[in-house]
Amino acid sequence: MDNAIFIGTKPFMNYVTAVVMQFTTKNASEIIVKARGKFISRAVDVSEVATKRFLEGQVDVKNISIDSEEFENKEGRQVRVSTIEITLGRRQ
Amino acid sequence: MDNAIFIGTKPFMNYVTAVVMQFTTKNASEIIVKARGKFISRAVDVSEVATKRFLEGQVDVKNISIDSEEFENKEGRQVRVSTIEITLGRRQ
Repeated sequence: MDNAIFIGTKPFMNYVTAVVMQFTTKNASEIIVKARGKFISRAVDVSEVATKRFLEGQVDVKNISIDSEEFENKEGRQVRVSTIEITLGRRQ
Repeated sequence: MDNAIFIGTKPFMNYVTAVVMQFTTKNASEIIVKARGKFISRAVDVSEVATKRFLEGQVDVKNISIDSEEFENKEGRQVRVSTIEITLGRRQ
């Protein structure tokens, strides 16, 4: 079971609500907020707002990892993009 | 001694070069890449390119932390901005 939320172009609060709902109504113990490229800043914002404004004292950032993905673009060129995974977990 | 590099609007490679130089010519053992708001994605890119393309096998990501800063904007409203600190360290 991979409780991942992938951050993209939807309205900001959609993602915050999705994170909060996972912990409150779905009773998740851990979820992973993932993003690539320019959406990385947004993944950090979602994690900060969810943990500090909505789930304060209940959920913390447990781990953050960054990496790179290589892929071929439409012109056949090798392109590198950064990725982030922010693990949020229920306080013990 | 705080080896911090703050990511902003300068050309991307300026920051990568600054990071690489700290480790190669200044012989730093650790540096911290810092950014706020939309520059967070860029801080991740700088860290990934510096460690994977230029300092591969020599320097790794040691720690990543995110936080929020509150400040008052020009209209006197309280505003929240996310921050990131990526600690890069020489491989032992």
